[in-house]
Amino acid sequence: MSKYVYMFSEGNGSMRELLGGKGANLAEMSNLGLPVPQGFTITTEVCTKYYNEGQVLSDDVKEQIFEALAKIEEMSGKKLGGTENPLLVSVRSGARASMPGMMDTILNLGLNDEVVEVVASLTNNPRFAYDSYRRFIQMFSDVVMEVPKSNYEKLIDEMKEKKGVKLDTELDADDLKELTKQFKAYYKSVKGVDFPQDPKEQLMAAILAVFRSWDNPRAIYYRRMNDIPSSWGTAVNVQSMVFGNMGYDCGTGVAFTRNPSTGEKKLYGEYLMNAQGEDVVAGIRTPLSIQELEKQNPEVFKQFNEICKILEDHYKDMQDMEFTIEKGKLYMLQTRNGKRTAVAALKIAIDLVNEGKLTKEEALMKIEPKQLDTLLHPQFDAKELKAATPITSGLPASPGAACGKAYMTAEKAIAASQKGEKVLIVRLETSPEDIEGMAVAEGCLTARGGMTSHAAVVARGMGTCCVAGCGDLVVDEENNCFSIKGKVFHEGDVLSLDGSTGNVYDGAIKTVEASTGGDFGIIMAWADECRALKVRTNADTPNDAAVAVRFGAEGIGLCRTEHMFFEADRIMAVREMILSKTVEGRKAALAKILPMQRGDFEGIYKALEGRPATIRFLDPPLHEFVPHTEDEMKVLAEDMGLTLADVKEAVDSLHEFNPMLGHRGCRLSITYPEIAEMQTRAVIEAAINVNKEMGWNIVPEIMIPLVGEVKELSYVKDIVDATAKAVMAEKGVEIEYMVGTMIEVPRAALTADEIATKAQFFSFGTNDLTQTTFAFSRDDAGKFLGDYYSKKVFEKDPFASVDQIGVGKLIKMAAAAGKEVRPDIKLGVCGEHGGDPSSVEFFHNVGLTYVSCSPYRVPLARLAAAQANIKNPRK
Amino acid sequence: MSKYVYMFSEGNGSMRELLGGKGANLAEMSNLGLPVPQGFTITTEVCTKYYNEGQVLSDDVKEQIFEALAKIEEMSGKKLGGTENPLLVSVRSGARASMPGMMDTILNLGLNDEVVEVVASLTNNPRFAYDSYRRFIQMFSDVVMEVPKSNYEKLIDEMKEKKGVKLDTELDADDLKELTKQFKAYYKSVKGVDFPQDPKEQLMAAILAVFRSWDNPRAIYYRRMNDIPSSWGTAVNVQSMVFGNMGYDCGTGVAFTRNPSTGEKKLYGEYLMNAQGEDVVAGIRTPLSIQELEKQNPEVFKQFNEICKILEDHYKDMQDMEFTIEKGKLYMLQTRNGKRTAVAALKIAIDLVNEGKLTKEEALMKIEPKQLDTLLHPQFDAKELKAATPITSGLPASPGAACGKAYMTAEKAIAASQKGEKVLIVRLETSPEDIEGMAVAEGCLTARGGMTSHAAVVARGMGTCCVAGCGDLVVDEENNCFSIKGKVFHEGDVLSLDGSTGNVYDGAIKTVEASTGGDFGIIMAWADECRALKVRTNADTPNDAAVAVRFGAEGIGLCRTEHMFFEADRIMAVREMILSKTVEGRKAALAKILPMQRGDFEGIYKALEGRPATIRFLDPPLHEFVPHTEDEMKVLAEDMGLTLADVKEAVDSLHEFNPMLGHRGCRLSITYPEIAEMQTRAVIEAAINVNKEMGWNIVPEIMIPLVGEVKELSYVKDIVDATAKAVMAEKGVEIEYMVGTMIEVPRAALTADEIATKAQFFSFGTNDLTQTTFAFSRDDAGKFLGDYYSKKVFEKDPFASVDQIGVGKLIKMAAAAGKEVRPDIKLGVCGEHGGDPSSVEFFHNVGLTYVSCSPYRVPLARLAAAQANIKNPRK
Repeated sequence: MSKYVYMFSEGNGSMRELLGGKGANLAEMSNLGLPVPQGFTITTEVCTKYYNEGQVLSDDVKEQIFEALAKIEEMSGKKLGGTENPLLVSVRSGARASMPGMMDTILNLGLNDEVVEVVASLTNNPRFAYDSYRRFIQMFSDVVMEVPKSNYEKLIDEMKEKKGVKLDTELDADDLKELTKQFKAYYKSVKGVDFPQDPKEQLMAAILAVFRSWDNPRAIYYRRMNDIPSSWGTAVNVQSMVFGNMGYDCGTGVAFTRNPSTGEKKLYGEYLMNAQGEDVVAGIRTPLSIQELEKQNPEVFKQFNEICKILEDHYKDMQDMEFTIEKGKLYMLQTRNGKRTAVAALKIAIDLVNEGKLTKEEALMKIEPKQLDTLLHPQFDAKELKAATPITSGLPASPGAACGKAYMTAEKAIAASQKGEKVLIVRLETSPEDIEGMAVAEGCLTARGGMTSHAAVVARGMGTCCVAGCGDLVVDEENNCFSIKGKVFHEGDVLSLDGSTGNVYDGAIKTVEASTGGDFGIIMAWADECRALKVRTNADTPNDAAVAVRFGAEGIGLCRTEHMFFEADRIMAVREMILSKTVEGRKAALAKILPMQRGDFEGIYKALEGRPATIRFLDPPLHEFVPHTEDEMKVLAEDMGLTLADVKEAVDSLHEFNPMLGHRGCRLSITYPEIAEMQTRAVIEAAINVNKEMGWNIVPEIMIPLVGEVKELSYVKDIVDATAKAVMAEKGVEIEYMVGTMIEVPRAALTADEIATKAQFFSFGTNDLTQTTFAFSRDDAGKFLGDYYSKKVFEKDPFASVDQIGVGKLIKMAAAAGKEVRPDIKLGVCGEHGGDPSSVEFFHNVGLTYVSCSPYRVPLARLAAAQANIKNPRK
Repeated sequence: MSKYVYMFSEGNGSMRELLGGKGANLAEMSNLGLPVPQGFTITTEVCTKYYNEGQVLSDDVKEQIFEALAKIEEMSGKKLGGTENPLLVSVRSGARASMPGMMDTILNLGLNDEVVEVVASLTNNPRFAYDSYRRFIQMFSDVVMEVPKSNYEKLIDEMKEKKGVKLDTELDADDLKELTKQFKAYYKSVKGVDFPQDPKEQLMAAILAVFRSWDNPRAIYYRRMNDIPSSWGTAVNVQSMVFGNMGYDCGTGVAFTRNPSTGEKKLYGEYLMNAQGEDVVAGIRTPLSIQELEKQNPEVFKQFNEICKILEDHYKDMQDMEFTIEKGKLYMLQTRNGKRTAVAALKIAIDLVNEGKLTKEEALMKIEPKQLDTLLHPQFDAKELKAATPITSGLPASPGAACGKAYMTAEKAIAASQKGEKVLIVRLETSPEDIEGMAVAEGCLTARGGMTSHAAVVARGMGTCCVAGCGDLVVDEENNCFSIKGKVFHEGDVLSLDGSTGNVYDGAIKTVEASTGGDFGIIMAWADECRALKVRTNADTPNDAAVAVRFGAEGIGLCRTEHMFFEADRIMAVREMILSKTVEGRKAALAKILPMQRGDFEGIYKALEGRPATIRFLDPPLHEFVPHTEDEMKVLAEDMGLTLADVKEAVDSLHEFNPMLGHRGCRLSITYPEIAEMQTRAVIEAAINVNKEMGWNIVPEIMIPLVGEVKELSYVKDIVDATAKAVMAEKGVEIEYMVGTMIEVPRAALTADEIATKAQFFSFGTNDLTQTTFAFSRDDAGKFLGDYYSKKVFEKDPFASVDQIGVGKLIKMAAAAGKEVRPDIKLGVCGEHGGDPSSVEFFHNVGLTYVSCSPYRVPLARLAAAQANIKNPRK
């Protein structure tokens, strides 16, 4: 029979896949002899089995659970539901990868009307017993029975009001006993049955709820955001309860071995006496700094410090731990590698190398590439900041500067963001439901909660600026407004937040680029030493090119020339070209564009300081350039000496049923070779001019888009070659140049051997290749991708992370065929996937030469490329 | 040094690739000892070289040409441009595959002002000399120098008018001498230089012109229509002239060893005395039947008959020959396997087998599958035909019946055809420029020309009905009308043509289906014996299914269910379903559709008489079903109790940027599982009902469209399985059924191994697969495909003939992967390519189980499948 349940003593830290991170680490801590309450782990395989079998637990699993429970009962001398020495347990999720707050937890399980009295009398602490029971009813209702917790919170608030107290801790045993009555009555009014009294029934229901929570919408969303496969499943940990809420010699806390915000090597954390873990995390009471513990209980503090050292040395990484003090005795409830800000991630990595605990390679592997983004985001302009006076401040929960319009719900923030607004989320406190709103926000401001509150943890993970626990902030959800020190703000009002200081400003403050030196520079230098894949950038302007160079780009992998066609000073000429019915007419219009386009390229070449640039010829369908309002058409008609009807007809004739699959890319150059002529001339002339002026040796790379057949490339290449030859003859200068193609149509990948005979380089356009390989229009897929995620047909957005199975197969085939025909072929990627870490790893493994991504993604790609090469070194 | 030029004596019939069909056969005839005028062939490789080297002839080629010329001069004792015994030559194209009339020919080359006099005096026939010279000037001007022939024709007409004669032959030597003067003057007035007098210069210019003509638009079009690669090139044949126009003991003709119209085993052809070949083919003078030759010159006739027998026995096929009689001596100028009507093709094939000349397999290989189409086209309804009186008749040049609106130019016929009209082309005579118009016409009626005229030859090749040489037809091009026996007809008037009798009728005559017995039945039976690939049909109605079964379909490969959704009695329910915002609303609407859809399937199952049917679930985007005019929207709004604004909003929300890549196919069933439920229920209930009624054992095949990821299929298959199980439980009947998928998205082909774990069959949807593999929208590609053909980027329409390189690679990969995972997987094709012979051959070679095509293509596919298996027998 398969083993589905492991006692903590049976597992160890390497069994993360089977036991989940929490379970494996609890087992490991047990093995290290640390004080861990007894318990057992139901494996991740059971989760998969549960889903495969129609969301039920099989009898053999149940049997093993009860066996393990019996062992805990035996070891502890306590019994679940026992009336002599009752056992209470926690039931907690624990996936292979940490998914903080995404799944569910139930504490104090085993309490019922009878047991609560036994606990009260055994502990001689009826207040504790009823506090635990009311918590259990609340949590079990919410998590297992879908009776929202907030309704119970109202009853507590009413009770506090009635008693004239402010804090939960000020309620006495009788108040809490009364509350449990009210809770149970409320439960029955909603569910129509009594609150479950059988502890084993409670246990099985709680376990099922944890497995169910693996597929709740926020967990699905989190997995998609973090590349976690749905097939991994979660484990469930059932552990004897220890109590931080038995009185003021009890407490509970969360701590990090180093500062997760700055990386400083100093114990960092928070705790609350007479509380359970949820109180610390939920941010309802503001906790104390872990350093206070030294005064309150020096012995426990010393023991805790020793444990921290043991754990950090053991795991060779900064640890994030949960602990509880029960009647003065310390228990460890969890340890894991701690989430950290990007700044902290870099500092900790460098410190651990300097402390001799890690090699550079190991240190690089500890840094999440996506986090680097934070470091690159603008900070406030120093001068404006100096002039500004904060209206209040809160906890500096996640660094960075943000400025935007304030919205008070995730939905509104998302809606405004979709309209192009920069938004801030302002909330009493955040909860997992707010995660999508936080993802689109520039920053987040909360009234409640500490540095380990939900808002703070999530914002740091996302690299979003966050100011938490801002006591001056009064949120009035009913009236959609909030006030700070009496000044009322409405939704849409602009605030500025400094997540590094916690300061909040009224109105907008200018932001400036982040610096890229210091720890960042050290880590990037290590990454560059370790990687094999080059990193270029997608940039269409000298400014973007310069930013990218500063971030370490080794050239431009994709310069889209169509963006230049839209600029105000040339769009009329572009429209003239499109509306001309003769080659001469088009050539005349193109002649007007030539000097401007040449200027564009000169600017870009200079910004690149001699680095290479791949310039893609005109790609979009021409209808994107023509006016679609009657007023604009009139202007164009006048300008060209045409009637409005002529212009309308011409514009109508450009209509396409499926423009994505229409007259675009190299198809334009085949119909209108004069466009390719002009663009070649602009590229070659610009290179000659800049080479001459700067003494450089730029080798232009001309890229033909949307090729699916070698003869398409060949036709356009002939034009390029003839034009280049003519330009060089005119200028009396010979320069080298390359002609290559995008591989963005399946047929190009399938016939890459033929295409490589004419292409000196391939650049995989993974955006379009994804569209055509899936037959998904990116513009339309939104209508059904939601259903795809919710029905688990897709786990990831194939436009965010490259589909390694299907699209990846085409890339592999094409790369191999290209190299076969032309061993020195240059292979790159210029889709947005070039800035996605798991995609970068794939591109490394496939043997590409470079990835190209947006300027702000360049550092990410450098680190991801290094990690890929550390995992799978390129020969 | 490469050999570029072959004397006829150096070649043979097997060297078709190098020497072209004409050159190889001239060599073969020489080897057989037949009377062939001396000459040489410039190889097809030279054509390729000519294009590769920028349309010039290299010096080594020129050298070899002049060497070969010297050999002819030596053998004949004549000299090109010689003033003692001048040599005249013809210069003619000759590709590997016959392309009648598509490329250029020059006769009488070598004449100039001096030589013409020598010829006149040597032959003592100045009329002949000047007739030859004026012909040469005309032809050389037209073909080599781009001075249109028609201008010269005008001068001839003026001369005839002046002289009061009707026929060219009535002009005397002086008239012709005067005409040559006028011709040369006209030439100089157009070109600004004298007509070239140097015979070697004439020769090289003529050779270049023939190579150039390989790429004229009508040749490109012909190649695309006939799957002839541009890379094959044409050879050029230079041959000593013999003259049919030296007097009335001279003549020229074209003949077939059997009747190309009926297949009757009897010499068939036409000739003209005192004429050159162009006179016979052009149809300007109406030639005599070859049988007349027996009276005019029994000896030559006997000799010709003997040669015919030798050639037919040698080539084992009906021969199409050109001959010339010079001063009573017979010369063979060409032989080739003759083009024939479908009726003739079948009869000749069967006769050749019966005569012991061919095996069945060899006979099948002689039949062009595309031709079968003709046999399947409607004939006139016998009753209506009996009641109808022809208004005139012409030559029955290409069989079949046609009825349509008459148009007098190819352009107008094409335009009307694009509007959906059935059209006829009515012309004085047709020329190669009319080929595209003839392709869209139901039939063709000409005033001039015989059975071997351009119109007749081309129409037979296309399987288009043609009545030629209709003497009563008077064409008035200037006034866009024509008259028959005085009755004036205007463009758009309806005529009916009987290509089998030559009769022409005023007005429309009803047509009926063709019969499929007789020779057709014999050949089809042979084909069925020889093929390995099964043939199914694409049919959505019981009627189509019945037609296809009559044509030999072995089942339905694609039954599109969406067509049923459009029918008047259910479109409202479909719209209700689309506009419903709840599952319940959709289910209520679908419940209305269910009985009708079940009835559709019952009808189809019955029409198939127990044969299998693959039923594809709803595929198109939903916006195709909703109304787009305000009136229709109002009706729908009332019907559904909605406001017009609601309906408009709903319709707008269905808009997609790229509907081809949008919310369609299986994506619909993932969003709205209730659609798949209803369709499953309809399919399974219909099969159970029909099985019960008829005692059959139908195994329904349910096909899920647009799958690109196995989980899509898996999701929909789960719905199908659950519904089927429920239906069978309700009915108390168990039946087998299959669930499979279309492979029409590149990713499906790339992940076919995964998909095969869930799919019992694959059906390659090569239409969509072509669109996505090329990233071509079929609706939009028309805008640029014209440029692609003219610039030789594409030679074929990938939607007509499957792209074996790119799309084919995906098909091969998917077929192999599917078989690997599921050895008994059924593999089919249901794109339009299933009715294209070269595509069918490819599908056979790839190892598919069946092709499915439209009912009228079924016989074609059966024959093509047989030919494929004869070429490459399946183990």
